[in-house]
Amino acid sequence: MSELKNNLKCKIAIDAMGGDFAPNNEILGSFQAMNEDPDVEVFLVGKKEEILKAIEINGLKFNHDQIIDAEQVVDMYDSPTAVLKTKSDSSLVKGAKLVKDGLAHAFVSTGNTGAVLAAATFIIGRIEGVSRPTIGAAMPTQTGGTCSVYDVGASVDSKSKHLFEYAVLGSIFAREIHQIKNPKVGLLSVGEEESKGNEVTLGTYKLLKESELNFIGNVEGRDILKGTADVVVCDGFIGNIILKFAESIIGFLKAKTKSFADKSLVNKLKVLSMKGTLKKVLKDLDYQNYGGVPLLGVNGICIIGHGSSSPLAIKNMILRAKEMYDKNLIQTFKDTLKSYADK
Amino acid sequence: MSELKNNLKCKIAIDAMGGDFAPNNEILGSFQAMNEDPDVEVFLVGKKEEILKAIEINGLKFNHDQIIDAEQVVDMYDSPTAVLKTKSDSSLVKGAKLVKDGLAHAFVSTGNTGAVLAAATFIIGRIEGVSRPTIGAAMPTQTGGTCSVYDVGASVDSKSKHLFEYAVLGSIFAREIHQIKNPKVGLLSVGEEESKGNEVTLGTYKLLKESELNFIGNVEGRDILKGTADVVVCDGFIGNIILKFAESIIGFLKAKTKSFADKSLVNKLKVLSMKGTLKKVLKDLDYQNYGGVPLLGVNGICIIGHGSSSPLAIKNMILRAKEMYDKNLIQTFKDTLKSYADK
Repeated sequence: MSELKNNLKCKIAIDAMGGDFAPNNEILGSFQAMNEDPDVEVFLVGKKEEILKAIEINGLKFNHDQIIDAEQVVDMYDSPTAVLKTKSDSSLVKGAKLVKDGLAHAFVSTGNTGAVLAAATFIIGRIEGVSRPTIGAAMPTQTGGTCSVYDVGASVDSKSKHLFEYAVLGSIFAREIHQIKNPKVGLLSVGEEESKGNEVTLGTYKLLKESELNFIGNVEGRDILKGTADVVVCDGFIGNIILKFAESIIGFLKAKTKSFADKSLVNKLKVLSMKGTLKKVLKDLDYQNYGGVPLLGVNGICIIGHGSSSPLAIKNMILRAKEMYDKNLIQTFKDTLKSYADK
Repeated sequence: MSELKNNLKCKIAIDAMGGDFAPNNEILGSFQAMNEDPDVEVFLVGKKEEILKAIEINGLKFNHDQIIDAEQVVDMYDSPTAVLKTKSDSSLVKGAKLVKDGLAHAFVSTGNTGAVLAAATFIIGRIEGVSRPTIGAAMPTQTGGTCSVYDVGASVDSKSKHLFEYAVLGSIFAREIHQIKNPKVGLLSVGEEESKGNEVTLGTYKLLKESELNFIGNVEGRDILKGTADVVVCDGFIGNIILKFAESIIGFLKAKTKSFADKSLVNKLKVLSMKGTLKKVLKDLDYQNYGGVPLLGVNGICIIGHGSSSPLAIKNMILRAKEMYDKNLIQTFKDTLKSYADK
């Protein structure tokens, strides 16, 4: 594997053993990404034999230099921090190390989220000025856009300065990747007034108010789907609960529709006739269609995906990583955080 | 107005100036409640002249002894705690005082939530063993039942013992009012494992585990609509955000349906044909249909409603207060909390 500077392609290390359908979906997604963008060069990190077998079964061809052998596999039951010591020869840890060592530009994994977070934070390291990396989730809004919520579970018991950093990182991501000119930043709270909130948000309010961000003040739970703000910041404990609540809406609607249909034949016919339309209306809510979520604040590009990610989702994660690379996002994070520190 | 003991009826004081359509909806709702349950005796607290006028306009008859004059009106901009001093002659403060003085069994208001909370807490007072009163919201579940979430905004920055108390109060309410035999109590967190959570929930987990409640462990954001637990406890900051997020789902679906319909005539026809069915499927999500939410932990029955409450919602709030009275709920709260304190 050559040094990064000798290669114009964007090298992306993928944890080939990460997801529920590994390494199959990882391989298929990687091929699709490389097909779509010839400047993408994927490195499949994982059990070499299994990877080769899956490549063969799928009738694909692959440069063997792009397979990085890793003996161990991290599963969902592994303790995130223990993994760094006990599974140093895992695809997850090795993938992060490739970025750390400058041999890959980005790391993509659909494995144990906590372990990816730990590996990225402790192996790749944090950007100067970032106390805690953050995971964001882009929720659909009723206006057809997205509202990115930070943090959705990278850490809990955040302090005001952490929420402020999420706002800085999220705002840059919204501007550069979602191409929103001057992203509106909202602070998730229990009332619009400055005086409403808990200890942490009251402190965050002051920091945001004094910053150069386009801070629109407190927003409430209802403002996420309304699209009042482009970026919403909150503690990871809250963001995670909201994200999972939102993910359960489709199941709720399906169950309600079914119980309505079960009441009579007429109802059944009514439901049957609207099924296709409803599906189209709800498609923005279907998180299965989404790719991964970015882990921001670490000193390298890192995307985390659902364990159940489809090849399409994995392809999208890889292309998103490539986009972050093309836009030199990590450098922008660094420069912006430095400018805040210099003040 | 006679003493409570001399009257077998359940006397309910209603803040007749509370809601957005006061006193009209309050009057209509009160009449409907008294019609439906002859053992309900409502006291309309508010500006006597306005109340009399609204009664006349609606062509109703009302015993003038049941109108308690109050000169002042609390609005949404009043500071909750200041109200107690500056607006002691308001319908909101006077209504709470009627309960405190033993002249009414319950207080119902659709006014300024913070002010009702303050009036109930400081005038009616807390039950011994309750550090913080709590407001619960019954969310619909996909299994057709409800999941009651405490706290949805009575207080923020709760400690573990507060969440524990919410669980005790909510569990009794679910058993007595929702008639669930042995209510399953879940602790809202970011993972099912005991080790997952923030400082507050980790402490709450221990308290719940050692209690006699039917504690099923941590539940996640997705478990609320799934109906995994009958009672879910969390800090009021989080509960309030989830409640408002949930309330925004209908608006989101309406907007998405509309933008789909706007795309073509065929789409428009498809949406038109499914509109009625969709409305029926979604009706459980429509919070406009709900009555108020109970304020638990104060030493008297208190129900708080949406400012926009319809006469039907107000009737339901009054009948719910009556049910709490019939079931002697305050005494059960007291006895149970005493039994915990005695241990």
